Amino acid sequence: MNKLLIVGTVAFDAIETPFGKTDKILGGAGTYIALAAEKYKVDSAIVSVVGGDFPNEYLDLFRRKKINTQGIEIVQDGKTFFWSGRYHHDMNKRDTLDTQLNVLADFRPKVPEAYKNAEVVMLGNLHPAVQMSVLEQVENSSLIILDTMNFWMDQTLEELKEVIAKVDVITINDEEARQLSEEYSLVKAARKIQEMGPKFVVIKKGEHGALLFHQDQMFFSPALPLEEVFDPTGAGDTFAGGFAGYLAETNDFSFENMKSAIIHGSNLASFCVEKFGTEKMLDLERNIIKKRLRLFKQLTQYEIKETNS
Amino acid sequence: MNKLLIVGTVAFDAIETPFGKTDKILGGAGTYIALAAEKYKVDSAIVSVVGGDFPNEYLDLFRRKKINTQGIEIVQDGKTFFWSGRYHHDMNKRDTLDTQLNVLADFRPKVPEAYKNAEVVMLGNLHPAVQMSVLEQVENSSLIILDTMNFWMDQTLEELKEVIAKVDVITINDEEARQLSEEYSLVKAARKIQEMGPKFVVIKKGEHGALLFHQDQMFFSPALPLEEVFDPTGAGDTFAGGFAGYLAETNDFSFENMKSAIIHGSNLASFCVEKFGTEKMLDLERNIIKKRLRLFKQLTQYEIKETNS
Repeated sequence: MNKLLIVGTVAFDAIETPFGKTDKILGGAGTYIALAAEKYKVDSAIVSVVGGDFPNEYLDLFRRKKINTQGIEIVQDGKTFFWSGRYHHDMNKRDTLDTQLNVLADFRPKVPEAYKNAEVVMLGNLHPAVQMSVLEQVENSSLIILDTMNFWMDQTLEELKEVIAKVDVITINDEEARQLSEEYSLVKAARKIQEMGPKFVVIKKGEHGALLFHQDQMFFSPALPLEEVFDPTGAGDTFAGGFAGYLAETNDFSFENMKSAIIHGSNLASFCVEKFGTEKMLDLERNIIKKRLRLFKQLTQYEIKETNS
Repeated sequence: MNKLLIVGTVAFDAIETPFGKTDKILGGAGTYIALAAEKYKVDSAIVSVVGGDFPNEYLDLFRRKKINTQGIEIVQDGKTFFWSGRYHHDMNKRDTLDTQLNVLADFRPKVPEAYKNAEVVMLGNLHPAVQMSVLEQVENSSLIILDTMNFWMDQTLEELKEVIAKVDVITINDEEARQLSEEYSLVKAARKIQEMGPKFVVIKKGEHGALLFHQDQMFFSPALPLEEVFDPTGAGDTFAGGFAGYLAETNDFSFENMKSAIIHGSNLASFCVEKFGTEKMLDLERNIIKKRLRLFKQLTQYEIKETNS
């Protein structure tokens, strides 16, 4: 079984949507990535940091799902990273109400010995210096996937570019791709970003799906149109976790197989948004996941008639 | 050869984009629909109205392309409908700079005798009373397709609803689907709109593709990601024209064939935006169209591996 090393925040989120609001609940990129990846036959570990206020039951939850937590440092006299946000009817945009870095401010990631040779490394959205430190600790990885966001492009672009130069796949959203490349056309943006290092560029467009670029090839997966989007928090990380988990299980990093990985990621993300926070992902059974994969197929697959014209 | 009756504006447009601006050029929904549909083996006619200022060369252009112009009324002492708009880098939105209805204000459509039995009727975006008048003149049509916009929802909702009740397919954009149905979710919106009459609902999302809904079935076509979108004017009408033209040629109005029609429409729209106005559509060869259809196929078709998980 391949190893998947996940670096990302394990956090508290407080979320408001038009459908309700939560108290502090389990959140963070590392959490969502791991809970998506565990739907695949992979040996996953999270590298992260939490405070003494982080409930043991959440760590137990990871362990019950065979997600290794050795790399989750607990700073007993510190507080866990906290994020609070509000969504409106157009769930493509959100307002951040509060961000408390807490223990994340001084995070020095330590990759557990047993995962330094992980075949797949998923760098969740974090300070590029943290991501680079993880890259310096791993060896012989076959695939490194990077997620990042505009904040790091604004604040630490040069450090971010050094990380980008070292990864195989980058996943960012459309606005971020435009910012990073200074190109409006996503086709041109993806080409420029490939020149920065990653052989594969995944551009996430939220409810509008995701694009995969590799050399002159292009592939698109829609997001599944849903009756109700309850809470988009974690959808992008769930996408990345499904993408990474599928690739780690299948151990095939070709463009053809990346297409499937994009569909698998989109599929899991479509579940994530149906309930608040991680709720839907926690008890999501694999036969339900497979069933929806077939729905995805129906949504885009067709036989086109040749016309006489 | 099936007949396709097209009702829509034949107009002058003046367009500004970040890439340049035009003087008054040939435009209008009827024009774009007809220029897309003529890529298929159909016998098309436009029903519209122009003023004495409308150049004969434009009418000749239609005729050279075997588009019947008998139903284009010429009001010698009137002026042709004029629209002027400006696009910014985000081409999903545009500012209307000027609209002069001119001869369109008193337009009473007259369907040529030979096209009253057209198999397919494409009602381009116009006042619902004009669309209804056309429906009252046709007989035995197999498929009626309606395009409309938010303006008519704001101004003439009851009249619009009477037209909607009589058509087989409606094509509108995502915001309009939400406005018409008072549902934010496009899945729910499409269901409500089906209850208003149309068995098929096509929701256009511009650069984000198009969705087709029929009963509990759903199909999605992306827009082709392009290096450069030069001018989006007419893309929606070109989509509708390709959709209608393909259906008229193939004479198969099943959900399966509508999937292909959506792809054909998206394919033609991807050409339309590559040059100003109708320029690209005018000399677009069929082998080029077929070649890009294969690109569309590559963009979304995949074989998914079954995983062991």
